[in-house]
Parts: sequence; C-alpha cells; structure tokens
Amino acid sequence: MKIESLTNIHVKHWVKLREKKYRDESGLFLIEGDHLLNEALQKGVVKEIVSNDSSWKKENIPFYEVTPAILKKISHQISSTKVVAVCEKVKEKTIKGNICILDCIQDPGNLGTIIRSCVAFGIDTLVVSQDTVDVYNEKVIRASEGLFFHLNIVRKNLPLFLEEIKKDDYLLLGTDVKNGKCLESIEINKKYAILMGNEGKGVQKALASKCNEMVNISMSNSCESLNVAVATSIILYSLNNRKKALK
Amino acid sequence: MKIESLTNIHVKHWVKLREKKYRDESGLFLIEGDHLLNEALQKGVVKEIVSNDSSWKKENIPFYEVTPAILKKISHQISSTKVVAVCEKVKEKTIKGNICILDCIQDPGNLGTIIRSCVAFGIDTLVVSQDTVDVYNEKVIRASEGLFFHLNIVRKNLPLFLEEIKKDDYLLLGTDVKNGKCLESIEINKKYAILMGNEGKGVQKALASKCNEMVNISMSNSCESLNVAVATSIILYSLNNRKKALK
Repeated sequence: MKIESLTNIHVKHWVKLREKKYRDESGLFLIEGDHLLNEALQKGVVKEIVSNDSSWKKENIPFYEVTPAILKKISHQISSTKVVAVCEKVKEKTIKGNICILDCIQDPGNLGTIIRSCVAFGIDTLVVSQDTVDVYNEKVIRASEGLFFHLNIVRKNLPLFLEEIKKDDYLLLGTDVKNGKCLESIEINKKYAILMGNEGKGVQKALASKCNEMVNISMSNSCESLNVAVATSIILYSLNNRKKALK
Repeated sequence: MKIESLTNIHVKHWVKLREKKYRDESGLFLIEGDHLLNEALQKGVVKEIVSNDSSWKKENIPFYEVTPAILKKISHQISSTKVVAVCEKVKEKTIKGNICILDCIQDPGNLGTIIRSCVAFGIDTLVVSQDTVDVYNEKVIRASEGLFFHLNIVRKNLPLFLEEIKKDDYLLLGTDVKNGKCLESIEINKKYAILMGNEGKGVQKALASKCNEMVNISMSNSCESLNVAVATSIILYSLNNRKKALK
C-alpha cells in the first residue's frame, strides 16, 4: 500500500530521524541514495526501505512505497533522492590496531572526510569525544562516501580513554602547530594513536599532556594551520607509509 | 549618516555582490569578519567597510554605518557578523614557480581548503579551469581562512595552458587512482605542476594524456578514492618535502 499523506505516522517517524535526539533514543538513522544503501545492505543494518519506485524492494526488508513529496520531505539532498533507508546503528567493537582520536570536531563534513581517510590509511578504530558532532548526522555519512560502514567508530570520555591506551603500550601522538616535532622525524615501531583537536582550538592542554609526542606538519610560515581533515589525513598517510616500510 | 533602509541603493548593491554574475561585472566581492578584513587591508584591496559599529572605520576607506538588520541581510554567516567589506578582485600575476591546477572543482569548501594547503606547501600559482567554482564565492573565501590573499590564482583554458607549461619545462603530474605510479616513487628535479580533477570524475582523459606522469596515493583497497582537497593536500605535502630535501 502506497503512503500518500505527509502526516502519516511512518512519515513522521522518518522525519524525526533527522534529529540527533531521536536517533539517540531509537538507535536508528537514515541514509540516502543507492551507493549508501548497497553498503548498508552488505553490512546487514537496513531495517526499512522507502522509495517512490518499487524496484528498490529487497527480500526480507520491509518496503514502503511513498509519493515523491514524502521522499523529498524525509531526505536532505536538494537533488532528487530516489531511495531512503532506515538503518540500525552499527555496534561498537573492541578497540584494536591503530587508532585515530578526535576531540570536539564540530563540522560534519570534516568528520566524514576524516572517516574516509581513516579507512584509506590503515586505521582500525576511530574514537570520538562526547562533544564531537554526531556520527549519524547525514552530512557526516554523505562526506564519508559510504566508508562510514568500514570503520569501528567508538564514542569515549577522552581523558579516561587516553590513560587506558597508554597502559596498552600505544605510541600516543598529538599535534602542536608551534612546538611539535616534525612529523617525518617520529619513529614508529609500535601501534599508534593520533589525537586531533577541535577546528579552531587544536588539542587541549589537558589532553596534550597525556601524549608521548607532539608532532607538526612542516609548512610555510604564511600558513598558520591546515584544515583539520587535511591535517589528519596527511598524518595518517605519513604514518601508514612508515608502517608499511617497517614490514 | 547611518543607513537604515533595507531598500537603500547601497544595500541593494552589497546584496547583489552575493551573486557571481554581479561580482564578474563589477570586479568586486564581499568579505566578512575581522580576520579577513585585516588580510584584505594588508593587501590594499578594501573599497568600502560596512558595519553597525563605527569602531571599524579605517583611514581613507569609505565607511557605511548600517543597522544590524542590514548587516544580516548582506552577510552569509548565521552567527552575527560584525563587519563586511567590499573588496576589488586581486589582479592575476605572472605564473611562476610550482603550480597546482584544478579541473572543474565544484565544491566551494574543497576549493577553499585547497587554497589553504597550496599556501602551506610551497605552491606559487593556483590555476583553475573555466568551469571551477567562483574563487570569490564567500564559502571559498571562508574555507581558505584568509589565505586566499596569499596565492596567485588564475583562471585558464586548461587544454591550452597544459601545452604552454610543458614547453616551459615543467614536470606535469596528474592523478590516476587505478593506474598511477606511487606518489613517493616520483623523482622531483625541476619545477612541477600537479593537475587535480573533478570531485566525482577525476582527471579527464583528454587532460591526462598531456601529463608527463600519472600518480596515485597508496591506500587500502576498501577505499576507492579520497576527498579531492585531502588528495591534493597529501600530494602537495609530499612534493614539498622532497623539494626541500633537494636543496
């Protein structure tokens, strides 16, 4: 049966999933488009598929046919989204391997881009602070280009977490644009965790004091700092290259 | 005299500067906030300053005091901008040194981030294709964090331009995620120009055929490609490090 009313109870539910509070309560989130749907299907997290085109039906997954107006109302994209799916949040897994840690990242595009680079450069777990933007924000998911589903993402109290991993024999690196050691001079001979700070403020002093080394990226004096997603990606790229050279 | 009417002729002029067409016709563009204003003042390109607070007045630059409502109307930022300035476009300078070339970059945030990384990593001139997003788009200027004023940015017909610089003994590099040579294996012993393609499509075949070498960034098989601003920044970082090692 096709849903045609914008005030239908299902439509209200889907629209509410655009809010963080409701995603937190329900443990569900929305994705849009065929690329993300395919990734989510592979991951087995799709609970409902919503489209105006019944060719999006999949076996064993509830399908809701809706009008284009409803699809427009529940999707974020300006261009016409053809399919939306309700997914259950991915379970946090045990933290292992190399880690990227984000403290208070505010921009969803930056978080999504960092997720993509983590997958590209050998990071097993991304740990985000309590005040980092919601991982299930649709802009994060979109900017991650579906790689969102390929990474273990865990939300933690960072001061406690940093103490924990230091006991676990990680090399804990932070960034310091002014006083850090040159990134290329850092010797990598064990598992590493790289801590990146907020867009405007960088790594907090209280967290920096817990790091084994503070690093910086060599750059021109005209440039005070890089975009945080760029800085994170350059560091992950450099560490990953050295890790490979070790093998 | 304070301007209080939203339909004042000056207000209309400032609002129109939010459109690319009007920026192209007038040779003017808007900037917002004290950081960008200071950069623009140093560059000597500020033509008018607009604020609701007369402490922003500067010697020899026309100052317009306006209501907060007018300021809100002409600015793009959601948070309350305190000052807006009309600037004249920066003149294109002779192309020299190491070059970054962008073909059809569509996202203003990506372009702004690339500008910031170009300044960080020793690029003298950024060449953008005719169909790349407008450099004077306010999102580009904002994402560049003012570094916009530290780079020679030139708009060119790329097929012709690539022929020109090859005659000028540049090493012209393009990117090819599948078939490129490993970035770290490329020998740098002369001036270089790195060509980056569109967000979705990469480097066009017709332009790739003009490159001396196609390179790629080593990454995990799970990741098909990186964000274009991230990929550009990693390549510029790596080339700049090697250039320094040469000296």
